[in-house]
Amino acid sequence: MRTTCLLALLLSVVLTNAARAQESPVAHVVDSYIETSGHEMLRSLRELVAMPNVSENQEDVRVNADFLVDQFEARGARMELLEIPGANPTVYGELLTPGADRTLMIYIHYDGQPVDPARWRATEPFVPALFSDALENGGALIDWPEDGDEIDPGWRMYARSTSDDKAPIVALLAALDAINEAGIPLTSNIKFFFDGEEEIGSPNMRKTLDLYVDKFEDVDLWLFCDGPLHQSRKPCVYFGVRGITGFELTVYGATRNLHSGHYGNWAPNPGMRLAQLLASMKDGSGNVMIEGFYDTVTPLSESEVAELAAVPQIDESLREELGLLESEAPEQNYLQRMQLPSLNIKGIRCGAVGSRARNIVPNEATVAIDIRLVKGNVPRDMIQLVRDHIRSQGYTILDDEPTMQERRESGKLIRMQTSATGYPAARTAMDNPQVEPVVEQLQIILGDEELLKIPGLGGSLPLYLISDYLQQPLMIVPLANHDNNQHSPDENLRIGNLFYGVKAMAAILTAPPVE
Amino acid sequence: MRTTCLLALLLSVVLTNAARAQESPVAHVVDSYIETSGHEMLRSLRELVAMPNVSENQEDVRVNADFLVDQFEARGARMELLEIPGANPTVYGELLTPGADRTLMIYIHYDGQPVDPARWRATEPFVPALFSDALENGGALIDWPEDGDEIDPGWRMYARSTSDDKAPIVALLAALDAINEAGIPLTSNIKFFFDGEEEIGSPNMRKTLDLYVDKFEDVDLWLFCDGPLHQSRKPCVYFGVRGITGFELTVYGATRNLHSGHYGNWAPNPGMRLAQLLASMKDGSGNVMIEGFYDTVTPLSESEVAELAAVPQIDESLREELGLLESEAPEQNYLQRMQLPSLNIKGIRCGAVGSRARNIVPNEATVAIDIRLVKGNVPRDMIQLVRDHIRSQGYTILDDEPTMQERRESGKLIRMQTSATGYPAARTAMDNPQVEPVVEQLQIILGDEELLKIPGLGGSLPLYLISDYLQQPLMIVPLANHDNNQHSPDENLRIGNLFYGVKAMAAILTAPPVE
Repeated sequence: MRTTCLLALLLSVVLTNAARAQESPVAHVVDSYIETSGHEMLRSLRELVAMPNVSENQEDVRVNADFLVDQFEARGARMELLEIPGANPTVYGELLTPGADRTLMIYIHYDGQPVDPARWRATEPFVPALFSDALENGGALIDWPEDGDEIDPGWRMYARSTSDDKAPIVALLAALDAINEAGIPLTSNIKFFFDGEEEIGSPNMRKTLDLYVDKFEDVDLWLFCDGPLHQSRKPCVYFGVRGITGFELTVYGATRNLHSGHYGNWAPNPGMRLAQLLASMKDGSGNVMIEGFYDTVTPLSESEVAELAAVPQIDESLREELGLLESEAPEQNYLQRMQLPSLNIKGIRCGAVGSRARNIVPNEATVAIDIRLVKGNVPRDMIQLVRDHIRSQGYTILDDEPTMQERRESGKLIRMQTSATGYPAARTAMDNPQVEPVVEQLQIILGDEELLKIPGLGGSLPLYLISDYLQQPLMIVPLANHDNNQHSPDENLRIGNLFYGVKAMAAILTAPPVE
Repeated sequence: MRTTCLLALLLSVVLTNAARAQESPVAHVVDSYIETSGHEMLRSLRELVAMPNVSENQEDVRVNADFLVDQFEARGARMELLEIPGANPTVYGELLTPGADRTLMIYIHYDGQPVDPARWRATEPFVPALFSDALENGGALIDWPEDGDEIDPGWRMYARSTSDDKAPIVALLAALDAINEAGIPLTSNIKFFFDGEEEIGSPNMRKTLDLYVDKFEDVDLWLFCDGPLHQSRKPCVYFGVRGITGFELTVYGATRNLHSGHYGNWAPNPGMRLAQLLASMKDGSGNVMIEGFYDTVTPLSESEVAELAAVPQIDESLREELGLLESEAPEQNYLQRMQLPSLNIKGIRCGAVGSRARNIVPNEATVAIDIRLVKGNVPRDMIQLVRDHIRSQGYTILDDEPTMQERRESGKLIRMQTSATGYPAARTAMDNPQVEPVVEQLQIILGDEELLKIPGLGGSLPLYLISDYLQQPLMIVPLANHDNNQHSPDENLRIGNLFYGVKAMAAILTAPPVE
């Protein structure tokens, strides 16, 4: 009885989606474009990621910017570099549609994370290479395909920024080409915001929004095309992101490294003191013990809780993939954890280990921590909670290295350096009227593939500038595979995700009017 | 009344020492040698420390060995390189005295710690430089003195191994020259054991003692000339050393670094887990909380406790010098702490901090720890206590990196790599009859300067091979200033300590017979 009901339900979903797809010429256009032009997309991404784009290397970044201008001008867009002195340019563009009464802004960033070539196993960071699968799944290096060869969506392209965040650029170019070739009209004025400083925290984005405000006033919805898809590999959209702040702490011991034989057991060890301080911040189940840490979190609405519950549970398979028997706070699942603020150790430096270790009591120990924020958390207030906690552990907090005078006044000295690049979280309500047509169109193009709708992405983007500062709605349309090694060596893109990206971009370009 | 008594006591000590000095021609000989030949000693040390001697660089070390052979052969000793395949040679020597019925073995090591030139402020590690005082006391670079210039004992010579352990070699050569020039006979057969692998834990010393056993069988007392003097800068001798063992621990998280936005707060953070584990090992007062850690310590004898109590307290001035308001376990003083086993963090490595920090959940965190041992502690038993403690914290201990199978079986994985170079402590009783004549002669040469007698040095040397394996008595006769930056950048020697070294060596060479 139950099985029959389920079957009926499933059939109706399939039929509905099939019907939708039939109604939609866009779905057919995109499918056949991927079929015929996959090789061109691979070449296009390969060309783009071969261009070094580490944010700090401004000359490299500008080469990318000029390339983007050329590519989008070739598709009829009016392009412009929005400059802030000393900053990487924002590549801005407009593709106006006569008669359209809605303006959509597509955000993608074209800069990339720093690279440490020695730690890459697949290839050099800016020498793209194609693999039959992910390295950790036994993928092997393969030749670039020739026209006519079949493309396996499971292939991976390795290089910095394949996933984060150049694939969306290639997908957008492909969607424009596909729609244009088929003679399908755009349904909105489309604008582009290609950020050149996302990986260093977009420090000039606010200034750009202020200085070029006339370009942004008429935007009805921002589409942020960045970040990974859900770990189930199902298509998904997000309606917010966590914010971020961070700090470094340095605990001081003696004025110099000391011989561990002659001073070990007498001189305080800053490594041990730092360990004790860190252990006081988080319990064995991953819950932050800093007083007030969870107090300012804005709870999810009922509908957000419901959508969250509808998302497939991926904890078990994710743990399996990552070689983890347990995750933090096991009573909460992955997505629930992403709706909470985090306190994460990015790194610890103290003395040396391995062949460089020496018999010393190190004179200092440093930890780098990031805090991910959710709606309700104010960055400076969260930092203040940490400061209060550190003081409660008996420390005197300094802004600089301790002077001898400060050393005489306190036995527990710590330096706290707070990041200047923090920003709060952002969230748009799922039932916002601007959001619905895009979600609907993407579901139509996907046919019977289910689209997940998730309140908040774990990662951070400076979207508060849109949601809170400009007071405009936003949604996030990611395309990268979750296992893309983002921000790490061996960053890669699953080729199937590039093809999915064309569907997502086509949905944005052809969304029905707001009702 | 009380003052009068104290005064009488002090006067009697001064008079006795003055009387002793008058009896001893050696004291006069040494004083006038230092007066006339100080420049030669400076040149000699400068020449010796300019020879790179990092233990791992075997060719460099051998150049030093050949140099020692030449120097001591020139003083009439029969020299020999004791070879073990693959090892740095032990430079062995004999200076036999007709009619002597006692054999003293002088141990000095001629290899040095690794160097990181970028971290040296005073000079290049093997380019000796003379300073008017210690850098941290505002010392400035000064020219090498010309013959006739007065030598300030407060000057410092900076270079690797000035203090650890080449100054004793120069002091020994000087003492031999001084005594020889004055026509004073040696009172013992003197042997030399110049170790070329002390800084890597003397891994071949036992093999050397076995293979060349006939050279060691007749030794009546070993004099270990290494390590720093007491922090009060008073002359001192020690009768034992702490042993050492160590290990590295690596806590594992996911199989790879993860994006801290998308996984922070869900994936266990190995840096945090390591901090929690370390914090469980030691309390806020520096006491080790590992069960049984202090249980096997052999207590000091009554006379050892008494000599220890007679040593001037240096905790306050040491804290002042090192910029510390408090030391570990404030209810115990420095020397009391050195008679206990220690647990010391040498270094921690996890992710990165500063400009190299990235927004990741690191996949592993490693700590290097050394344990200093005192009499009664068996290295492998102490390691076992640590293993038991780690297991009590829920960890599965591995010998290697975890396999996927091991990851599926335990949520808390840790790798423990134990050092192969550990060894137990050593201690000779202060009232051993072989020890007394050397102590007496040194006090005579020192005149009214008080000689401190301390049961155990905080540092480690493989002296158990003498005290426990060969079952021969030993004492330690250090000469270096305590603030010599041993094992660290900017190693240096206070020139006054080199001069003191001549007195100490002369005392060994001319000690009266055993009663």
